[in-house]
Amino acid sequence: MNALNISEYMQTLGVQARQASARMAKATAAEKNAVLKSLARLLRENVEALAKDNANDIERAVAAGLAAPMVDRLKLTPRIVEVLAQGCEQLAAMPDIIGEIIGMKQQPSGIRVGQMRVPLGVFGMIYESRPNVTVEAASLSIKSGNACILRGGSEAIDSNRALARLVQQALTDNGLPAEAAQLVQTTDREAVGQLIAMPQFVDVIIPRGGKGLIERISREAKVPVIKHLDGNCHTYVDDPVDIDMAVRVADNAKTQKYSPCNASEGLLVARGVAREFLPKIGAIFAAKGVEMRCDAEAKAILSQFDPKDATEQDWYEEYLAPIISIKVVAGVDEAIAHINHYSSHHTDAILTRDHVNAQRFLREVDSASVMVNTSTRFADGFEYGLGAEIGISTDKFHARGPVGIEGLTSLKYVVLGQGELRG
Amino acid sequence: MNALNISEYMQTLGVQARQASARMAKATAAEKNAVLKSLARLLRENVEALAKDNANDIERAVAAGLAAPMVDRLKLTPRIVEVLAQGCEQLAAMPDIIGEIIGMKQQPSGIRVGQMRVPLGVFGMIYESRPNVTVEAASLSIKSGNACILRGGSEAIDSNRALARLVQQALTDNGLPAEAAQLVQTTDREAVGQLIAMPQFVDVIIPRGGKGLIERISREAKVPVIKHLDGNCHTYVDDPVDIDMAVRVADNAKTQKYSPCNASEGLLVARGVAREFLPKIGAIFAAKGVEMRCDAEAKAILSQFDPKDATEQDWYEEYLAPIISIKVVAGVDEAIAHINHYSSHHTDAILTRDHVNAQRFLREVDSASVMVNTSTRFADGFEYGLGAEIGISTDKFHARGPVGIEGLTSLKYVVLGQGELRG
Repeated sequence: MNALNISEYMQTLGVQARQASARMAKATAAEKNAVLKSLARLLRENVEALAKDNANDIERAVAAGLAAPMVDRLKLTPRIVEVLAQGCEQLAAMPDIIGEIIGMKQQPSGIRVGQMRVPLGVFGMIYESRPNVTVEAASLSIKSGNACILRGGSEAIDSNRALARLVQQALTDNGLPAEAAQLVQTTDREAVGQLIAMPQFVDVIIPRGGKGLIERISREAKVPVIKHLDGNCHTYVDDPVDIDMAVRVADNAKTQKYSPCNASEGLLVARGVAREFLPKIGAIFAAKGVEMRCDAEAKAILSQFDPKDATEQDWYEEYLAPIISIKVVAGVDEAIAHINHYSSHHTDAILTRDHVNAQRFLREVDSASVMVNTSTRFADGFEYGLGAEIGISTDKFHARGPVGIEGLTSLKYVVLGQGELRG
Repeated sequence: MNALNISEYMQTLGVQARQASARMAKATAAEKNAVLKSLARLLRENVEALAKDNANDIERAVAAGLAAPMVDRLKLTPRIVEVLAQGCEQLAAMPDIIGEIIGMKQQPSGIRVGQMRVPLGVFGMIYESRPNVTVEAASLSIKSGNACILRGGSEAIDSNRALARLVQQALTDNGLPAEAAQLVQTTDREAVGQLIAMPQFVDVIIPRGGKGLIERISREAKVPVIKHLDGNCHTYVDDPVDIDMAVRVADNAKTQKYSPCNASEGLLVARGVAREFLPKIGAIFAAKGVEMRCDAEAKAILSQFDPKDATEQDWYEEYLAPIISIKVVAGVDEAIAHINHYSSHHTDAILTRDHVNAQRFLREVDSASVMVNTSTRFADGFEYGLGAEIGISTDKFHARGPVGIEGLTSLKYVVLGQGELRG
């Protein structure tokens, strides 16, 4: 397609999505759950066919010389398909929040005023490599009564097409419009530029991918973006603290997995417990091959574990690797100040016995998730009980932190009267 | 100032606001309420001084040949000052929602997850003429624990400066930073361009003013905008309906005041009640000099009242004047379809006895406020019990409808653990 054709094509997707969204907004819980259950069944019935389509993507990726981890992300194994099917069933089993009315109160005039939860309308999802996002996004869209336009990476186009066909079959098999979940069929980059600039058809854009992609989309979008940038998360070990608990949690926060955005990249330790705590965690990090980049004080305490000097840039860094920055601080004040300055406002935790320090940390640390005595690795939609997660927001506006079904809705005012007049 | 100086000046305001916002976020309810009570006192003590500064603005406006209604809007009468003082006291008396924690639930892992309400941070307010907005915005900012940068119209600069001085005195008298509420001191337009493009310092922009201003700001802003565009509101008279109630409410919705955004601009009438209802409301509209722009069917019924033909454009129109469009529809389906097509998604009401139609209207009309059996004129923050209103949002994202203190806050996740690890 040339640019003009792509523009027309995207407009058509937009018109169709807007129309479908009106139908989805009034779909009953039973209708939406039936679609999700059908989709689970279709996924299981088509494991082999999906493997074939997926093999095309893998073959192309290998031929193109893609790095092994990139090829890995493309894989749609029977296990992944089963997880997707179970996810659809879990969503079907969750309560339907669309149409719920909250806070209905009578006002002095006599009118009763509350708020009804309604879908946002249409969202655009822009993602790379992993084809499972196609099903995750579509199923959340269906449950929340929205319509979605999905733009996956060109490297996964065959898998995405196959999955999108199953989603649309599940919709039409249950009397709902196929256009409620449309995959962008062209892999031309121009399509992304169009998708993020149609406020008349698309209410919000959710990008998933590298920082470069997300920054570009945020800069150029003409509609709101639920964006997830860095995860420079911190664990702060306060004084007093249960040292053994602190060692276990700080270890888990850094080393349980190195690549997730909610892994801790910075460790702050109160001076009063540094000499007791640091050698214990240092031994674990050293045994696991985690490089420690330290301020002078931490370095002195950890000298036996070959610590490195932290530079100013280290305090900002999201390593996503077996590296951690370590700093000794005077106490909770310095910890909060450090975090509010250097953190990416994603997730930060305090480990402490002190009630006042815990309360201050929760209140004053300006991050999407603030935690006491647990691992930053818990910051995700499933662990928070949201059922599923369309993304994590590092913004403050609309949705903050893990975004589930509720983040795809808004509240409109509902006013019930008996003929009241404004005086 | 030249463009470079303005840029530096606005950056300085931004840095100062960001710093002040951290202090405001942890201010206690007692501190914030003390500021609001001081401000009420200062306003009353300075009625005469304010009148003097206001007289400068009025004089300049008259000399510049501004139209009478524009000059009127500039006026800061003793009565208006008293209303502002009372507004501050009302805000001080309201509960403080900052720091409240909602929905704390234990998850299967053992962690407890809830959400804490926190200020957005810094908002920029851009407004025209009415100087009272300076106090309304500053007082809402204080109560909600935010910092604000206020950019009023050049025509009210003397009044705005005088009011902003009182706000800052109230802040510093109570140990809070003056920079929590800063007025932009230059009237250069370039300052607006800067204010809406500093995402590092300003979290959201709230414009109040004409559609042109708001559209320009939305187009050019690099931060989220809580925007209020048209108010093309509808009243739909269903069948069956209490005709007398319908006549009173439809009259109130159109004629109680013509200029507000929540006045009804369109009247839809179910065919089954049109012959009984329309002559009654037509007589009232005719007596009050309201021009009726009708479709053929309504025109035939209203022939004795000199009705006009409605054009296609009339269905879209926000008259803000003694003019109303009138259309006979088959029933609730056609009414909902008409409203979702032509309305500005601000406020729309159904007048009915039918329960099913009422429920469908509430669910399916895609507007910020949907009403049953009452006047669209009720759509505002005070009538909804929000205490005060910083604006009305016709968007779906973040805040919809009248925006009060809650709209100036966001929710962050709070996680409480006892050493849980991610497995």
